[in-house]
Amino acid sequence: MINQLIEQIQKKDAPIVVGLDPMLSYIPTHILSKAYAELGETLESAAEAIWQYNKGIIDAVYDLVPAVKPQIAMYEQFGIPGLAAFDRTVKYCKEKGLVVIGDVKRGDIGSTSAAYAVAHLGKVQVGTKKIAAFDEDFATVNPYLGSDGINPFLEVCQEEKKGLFILAKTSNPSSGEFQDQCFVSNQRPLYENVGMKIAEWGEQCMSEKYPYSYIGAVVGATYPEMGKVLRALMPKTYILVPGYGAQGGKGKDLVHFFNKDGLGAIVNSSRGIIAAYKNEAYARFGSEHYADASRQAVLDMKEDLKQAVQK
Amino acid sequence: MINQLIEQIQKKDAPIVVGLDPMLSYIPTHILSKAYAELGETLESAAEAIWQYNKGIIDAVYDLVPAVKPQIAMYEQFGIPGLAAFDRTVKYCKEKGLVVIGDVKRGDIGSTSAAYAVAHLGKVQVGTKKIAAFDEDFATVNPYLGSDGINPFLEVCQEEKKGLFILAKTSNPSSGEFQDQCFVSNQRPLYENVGMKIAEWGEQCMSEKYPYSYIGAVVGATYPEMGKVLRALMPKTYILVPGYGAQGGKGKDLVHFFNKDGLGAIVNSSRGIIAAYKNEAYARFGSEHYADASRQAVLDMKEDLKQAVQK
Repeated sequence: MINQLIEQIQKKDAPIVVGLDPMLSYIPTHILSKAYAELGETLESAAEAIWQYNKGIIDAVYDLVPAVKPQIAMYEQFGIPGLAAFDRTVKYCKEKGLVVIGDVKRGDIGSTSAAYAVAHLGKVQVGTKKIAAFDEDFATVNPYLGSDGINPFLEVCQEEKKGLFILAKTSNPSSGEFQDQCFVSNQRPLYENVGMKIAEWGEQCMSEKYPYSYIGAVVGATYPEMGKVLRALMPKTYILVPGYGAQGGKGKDLVHFFNKDGLGAIVNSSRGIIAAYKNEAYARFGSEHYADASRQAVLDMKEDLKQAVQK
Repeated sequence: MINQLIEQIQKKDAPIVVGLDPMLSYIPTHILSKAYAELGETLESAAEAIWQYNKGIIDAVYDLVPAVKPQIAMYEQFGIPGLAAFDRTVKYCKEKGLVVIGDVKRGDIGSTSAAYAVAHLGKVQVGTKKIAAFDEDFATVNPYLGSDGINPFLEVCQEEKKGLFILAKTSNPSSGEFQDQCFVSNQRPLYENVGMKIAEWGEQCMSEKYPYSYIGAVVGATYPEMGKVLRALMPKTYILVPGYGAQGGKGKDLVHFFNKDGLGAIVNSSRGIIAAYKNEAYARFGSEHYADASRQAVLDMKEDLKQAVQK
């Protein structure tokens, strides 16, 4: 799957992930009103509106970007209907040839991590059959529980040729509270220690075609200096970079997340793309044409990254 | 909700949580075969078998224990039908007067954590209505992202009078990989630093009736010495203790997780109770009477804890 991701990044010349993190407040009135009229103010209508909204965006950008990253929390809050919209979104994106990164941030002890790995990347055994549940291509994972929380994910990734992005340094303001604390043992902060472990776990999961592992890392665009250090510590690790755009990360901050081969990082933007029409810069499109605004935002982001990374 | 938990613990004289972590391999053949016969080998039949199995156990133990802890991963691996079985299990347990701890180990940056908090403990706004999705009483949460990953959960807990158990020291063998590393800043390990933060977060969320916060911590039974230290660092924090039974924790290991008032901890057992009939000690019940075996296992656990805690 890392091969497919890299091929798509090269083909579309855009190391960009569109974060499909819908909030009802982003959804244009014409979509919301129609759903409420048909299904009332229910979890079902919210889920239907989210699906319609997503479909519009996917149709408008799928030829421009290699990957999407649906954030499952935004669906989970609408219960079973919301998760069915997540499922439908994942399947539709795969039909459109997009690589799907399930932003699920799961992680638990061994047997439970195994169940999460199966849920999102593998197939579950039911009697004599093996059935896929959510079936994303990559999943994000939390490292707090250590190796035996990660190993079951590695096993499923090896079997299914899928991948992970494990949290190293997250993009949020208080990520440093624990992540930036230096360990007595080696004078390095927690996020570097996690980064070194990610590199180690990744060694067992190398692409046979590219010098990259299918076990990647999450490093926030909001911490470019730390990104530079992590880039050097994990040269074969693909980095998923959230925090560009709405969270404050800029193109020029991203230079050090990439390797000299121009690969090694993929940058996520969620709100900045999916709710572009609400932004002054794209207000001219109007809410009816929200998906065209999203397309233009992707084109602009592509340009911003290109200028930054070429410098 | 912490009030209800403590009252139930006192009334039933059992600081015990039953972990509803069903695996298909635990489910007696008569239940599985019936589900496969009706629905084929599908996610739907697996989910139906899980629900029937759970119902049997809940009916057999609800009068003995204060709380249950369904592990969502075990349901999530069966996709939407699996999560519908989770939802049905949560609702049924609440009908039976049980406190439900959703073992979901969620955690993300601010706005995403807010969505998870709403999904599991709160109500989501849809038009003019507020609707609950999964609606557990407590949820487990991962602290890796720091305060701004936790704060949205605290807000929802304050609003809804619900609670959390935040991971401090987990029960798995490699939990020490990161959690046991001492920080240069204060020479204390990560898990103690997290413990101190949990105590701090908990101060904003104190019960008005008991000297306990509704923001609790997870500390594994498999690390009794660390439990002792954490107990002292977080005197007002309720501790959820996994790892008893199948994972190796014994009654005598649990003494130091409790406060002198006999409160302050609640001990989880999953496999040891729900799959008791597969254990030699309870084999006499037979698989048809698996729920009676579970009931006996609860009674035995209650006795084991009582002897240990009274010493």
